[in-house]
Amino acid sequence: MPGPDEEQTHDVTQPAGPVAWPDGGRAAAFLGFDMDAEDVALTVDPESRNRLSAMSHQAYGPLTGMPRVLDLLTRHDLRATFFCPGYTAERYPDLLRRVRDEGHEIAHHGYLHEAIAGMTRQQEADVLDRGLDALERVVGVRPVGYRAPMWETTYASAELLLDRGFVYDSSLMDSDLPYELAERPGAGARSIVEIPVAWALDDWEQFAFVPDLFGPGVIEDPAKALALWTGELTEAHRHGSCFTLTIHPFLSGRLGRLRALETLIETMAGLSGLWFATGREIAEHVRSLALTPRVFPQPEIR
Amino acid sequence: MPGPDEEQTHDVTQPAGPVAWPDGGRAAAFLGFDMDAEDVALTVDPESRNRLSAMSHQAYGPLTGMPRVLDLLTRHDLRATFFCPGYTAERYPDLLRRVRDEGHEIAHHGYLHEAIAGMTRQQEADVLDRGLDALERVVGVRPVGYRAPMWETTYASAELLLDRGFVYDSSLMDSDLPYELAERPGAGARSIVEIPVAWALDDWEQFAFVPDLFGPGVIEDPAKALALWTGELTEAHRHGSCFTLTIHPFLSGRLGRLRALETLIETMAGLSGLWFATGREIAEHVRSLALTPRVFPQPEIR
Amino acid sequence: MPGPDEEQTHDVTQPAGPVAWPDGGRAAAFLGFDMDAEDVALTVDPESRNRLSAMSHQAYGPLTGMPRVLDLLTRHDLRATFFCPGYTAERYPDLLRRVRDEGHEIAHHGYLHEAIAGMTRQQEADVLDRGLDALERVVGVRPVGYRAPMWETTYASAELLLDRGFVYDSSLMDSDLPYELAERPGAGARSIVEIPVAWALDDWEQFAFVPDLFGPGVIEDPAKALALWTGELTEAHRHGSCFTLTIHPFLSGRLGRLRALETLIETMAGLSGLWFATGREIAEHVRSLALTPRVFPQPEIR
Amino acid sequence: MPGPDEEQTHDVTQPAGPVAWPDGGRAAAFLGFDMDAEDVALTVDPESRNRLSAMSHQAYGPLTGMPRVLDLLTRHDLRATFFCPGYTAERYPDLLRRVRDEGHEIAHHGYLHEAIAGMTRQQEADVLDRGLDALERVVGVRPVGYRAPMWETTYASAELLLDRGFVYDSSLMDSDLPYELAERPGAGARSIVEIPVAWALDDWEQFAFVPDLFGPGVIEDPAKALALWTGELTEAHRHGSCFTLTIHPFLSGRLGRLRALETLIETMAGLSGLWFATGREIAEHVRSLALTPRVFPQPEIR
Repeated sequence: MPGPDEEQTHDVTQPAGPVAWPDGGRAAAFLGFDMDAEDVALTVDPESRNRLSAMSHQAYGPLTGMPRVLDLLTRHDLRATFFCPGYTAERYPDLLRRVRDEGHEIAHHGYLHEAIAGMTRQQEADVLDRGLDALERVVGVRPVGYRAPMWETTYASAELLLDRGFVYDSSLMDSDLPYELAERPGAGARSIVEIPVAWALDDWEQFAFVPDLFGPGVIEDPAKALALWTGELTEAHRHGSCFTLTIHPFLSGRLGRLRALETLIETMAGLSGLWFATGREIAEHVRSLALTPRVFPQPEIR
Repeated sequence: MPGPDEEQTHDVTQPAGPVAWPDGGRAAAFLGFDMDAEDVALTVDPESRNRLSAMSHQAYGPLTGMPRVLDLLTRHDLRATFFCPGYTAERYPDLLRRVRDEGHEIAHHGYLHEAIAGMTRQQEADVLDRGLDALERVVGVRPVGYRAPMWETTYASAELLLDRGFVYDSSLMDSDLPYELAERPGAGARSIVEIPVAWALDDWEQFAFVPDLFGPGVIEDPAKALALWTGELTEAHRHGSCFTLTIHPFLSGRLGRLRALETLIETMAGLSGLWFATGREIAEHVRSLALTPRVFPQPEIR
Repeated sequence: MPGPDEEQTHDVTQPAGPVAWPDGGRAAAFLGFDMDAEDVALTVDPESRNRLSAMSHQAYGPLTGMPRVLDLLTRHDLRATFFCPGYTAERYPDLLRRVRDEGHEIAHHGYLHEAIAGMTRQQEADVLDRGLDALERVVGVRPVGYRAPMWETTYASAELLLDRGFVYDSSLMDSDLPYELAERPGAGARSIVEIPVAWALDDWEQFAFVPDLFGPGVIEDPAKALALWTGELTEAHRHGSCFTLTIHPFLSGRLGRLRALETLIETMAGLSGLWFATGREIAEHVRSLALTPRVFPQPEIR
Repeated sequence: MPGPDEEQTHDVTQPAGPVAWPDGGRAAAFLGFDMDAEDVALTVDPESRNRLSAMSHQAYGPLTGMPRVLDLLTRHDLRATFFCPGYTAERYPDLLRRVRDEGHEIAHHGYLHEAIAGMTRQQEADVLDRGLDALERVVGVRPVGYRAPMWETTYASAELLLDRGFVYDSSLMDSDLPYELAERPGAGARSIVEIPVAWALDDWEQFAFVPDLFGPGVIEDPAKALALWTGELTEAHRHGSCFTLTIHPFLSGRLGRLRALETLIETMAGLSGLWFATGREIAEHVRSLALTPRVFPQPEIR
């Protein structure tokens, strides 16, 4: 791995290549629900456990948003992926069972929605194991997919995930296409499927606000988020890309926002050759393409 | 109360159930005015008392916004709920008497709009008593409703409110429906009616800005807030929910914003079976339904 | 002056009453230009004087925005009020002379756009004198109007202004109508005319951004600001109020924003009975009405 | 150079004058791409090098956005200017070669996207040299144009740039027109062509967000940015100005945003007499006009 100002004649990383979708499909849509609840507040500030109103704001997700989300998916006969912190799973076991029993994919999203930036490799591993243990105990699920809480991964994450049998991650942002990510530069490295996310395709930046915890304090009209997402969806469809939308039920479970999401889903249904898939289905398809793994050498500063 | 990672076969809290509205009504609308004035600035920074401009900004509520709000409600023959800090009541007694004499409900909103997060139980109790004393002295009102300043409650709040004869609280955010909230887990607990609020249905996030005191610095067009609220109102009506809108006269008393609010009220009037009610009316109705109280066990972090 | 929790049977302050406009006019429009330039940045951070790009951003006002603003006013045959920090006057004397010679009002806006919150009475007086001296030396103007930098006044401001011959202030926010403001509670107090401002009627919150100096980082489309302001203008016209708009040439001198401002001015021209006036004209009219001065007792916290 | 409160009968700086465009053109459009990638994050927080997700977010620019941008320009047969940090050039040499080989201008944008505010003259010079060295080594380019990272220049920048053979800078904000900028006040000073930028004509404020690194957390719909920019473009065309738009491929390379950019380019194509030019072409044209250099005396605070 050449450093940035050593002799180097090629870019350190090549762009992700185009992906052939199954059955001659034109593009893909991946709808992922991040089931953050009390945990995401507790991680930001453990003292928030004493703030009943803030806790209730987070509980809106599992208590009110999730049943609506599940009904919506059933209404449209769709299967989606639910990224669930272990803490949420333990606190809402009946809900998790319903997600599983209705045929959706349950994937890993940390234990207490921990921001792993700054953690040691061992700490990161412990969080992964704790989340795995919770999902196994509560719903007997051994997930193949992972999305990092706060979309924060380290250069150790891929290896830690592969060691635990994960097939895909969905936390990076360098492409609109899934790809194979090498666990490290160099020969003999294993790879994990990466399905990238995007801040623009996340309801958090449009709607999230809890005083002293998160959010800039601006709350958007769902119509604005819908226009933004529909624009990206249309272009993703046109370009054969993968439209990866992240929805938080504690935010988008609100009635007006859910209506916007349903409108988006109806728009998806009208797009010819759009493959609506879970993370696992996309990952398995990508794996079948035997793509050359990509490498992200860690930047050095000199 | 099982901890989050002990054996547990049911979710710690069940979702709020659907509510049957009076007279076969389809949905409810609860318009609450938070009468924050100088107090909300003084709480954030006591030194703001030396900032005449900031004080005048807050005084816009009682001096300019409130008379317009009261006229608007009279024009539409509506009775609403006014959550009033004790400090505002003491400073603007004539205004409070007008609110009372025009048949509106006066409810509790702290004394100096105190953020109770981090307070001891005794401090929280003292604030409640101080607010009660002010409302009693100024307008002879013993309120049955409470909305926590900054929508901050603790796990002690319900018990403290019940001890003082309150019938309902309106500060939590886990549902769009009112419900009975147990004061604590376990047998023999009393319950209080909860009418949840929502940051998206609050004019603060759309309009509030005082340098060095609050607000992100973005000020929205009332048309944007109106579109957002109308969307939520329409869906609440469709789903049989309770549309709970929070208005601050020091913000929405501005002419253009008040016009938007009036348009929203006109839209409400056109929705069949929408029950426009005060917090007290909703609480009494909910109480008559004899619902099973809900419990929110406090999250533990291990 | 009764304290907030002593016996008190009337509100500490009465609302501003309706104003009869000259010649049977229906409402008033007061367009004020705050000529903040390098000073407003230097006040926030004196080290910004080494940041040439930031200084040039502020210089956009006098160099590029102001000539356009003056041309615009001439094109519509309007006279407006320019609130000018002494520092700007000293740095751009030719510009100030042009403002004066084209018949506009020049008013006081501090010396270095100082935030007077936290200043002693003497410091506040010194800033006033320094600004007066600059305006007198550069353009020979003894202003009768004052707008506090950052719209920050103290409970001493009115007296300090009256001692220096000012007739009006335009920095408070409790009303949409001008009024007489008593310099202090009690008998024998003099009064100053107050023409209130509003954060919603200020281009700063729509457009201002300089990294590490000010602005939340969101920059709005002029069409959004125009819609917001037009809505308030329409309502002000309908209610007989005073539409007081604050424009910063370093912001709204940008071409697209100036086009929006011109559209607003064209809308004003089409509103029957709308009196377009300078601050001085409004103040003199208000004075002629011999209104009862209003008092703002300073809040106490107990 | 007279100080701000000494005798002075002329403004310290005169406004930039109107510019005659080549071939009787009516106005100019200058599309500049700031090729910030990992460097802009590493500069804000060196520890971000451990955050793979954040690094991948930045890598979206060179890996995904840039190829699309280059295709777009080819599709419209346009040549644009790419301001490239040395670090990006070293990390993505193939990409830089493609930019060069497709006929675009490569210009200087720091080495690690360093904020030079607070740097000594020597430090600033070192950064310039390091960036020059990188561009020369990677693509054999000796740039004539410079845009300061974060648009931060000092009062030493012009001289340092002229010493290194630069012809133009594009980092100031006092005008919408290019001009000659004197390296210092006084006789015998050399001058550099300045092509000003504007925060409102930058995609950063509309779209940038990386937690703990930058962005207010609000992400706009591309349609809003397009409306804002189209409004400014239309006015620039009408006024004979120079429309200088700054695009970051790590942001606007997103599909929906790129579509908006293409729409804007199509609008440009329909404006008669609009000269679409690189920074170098504009600078050479301005130089040919032999304009009187402008001077920005550094503000003093007394």
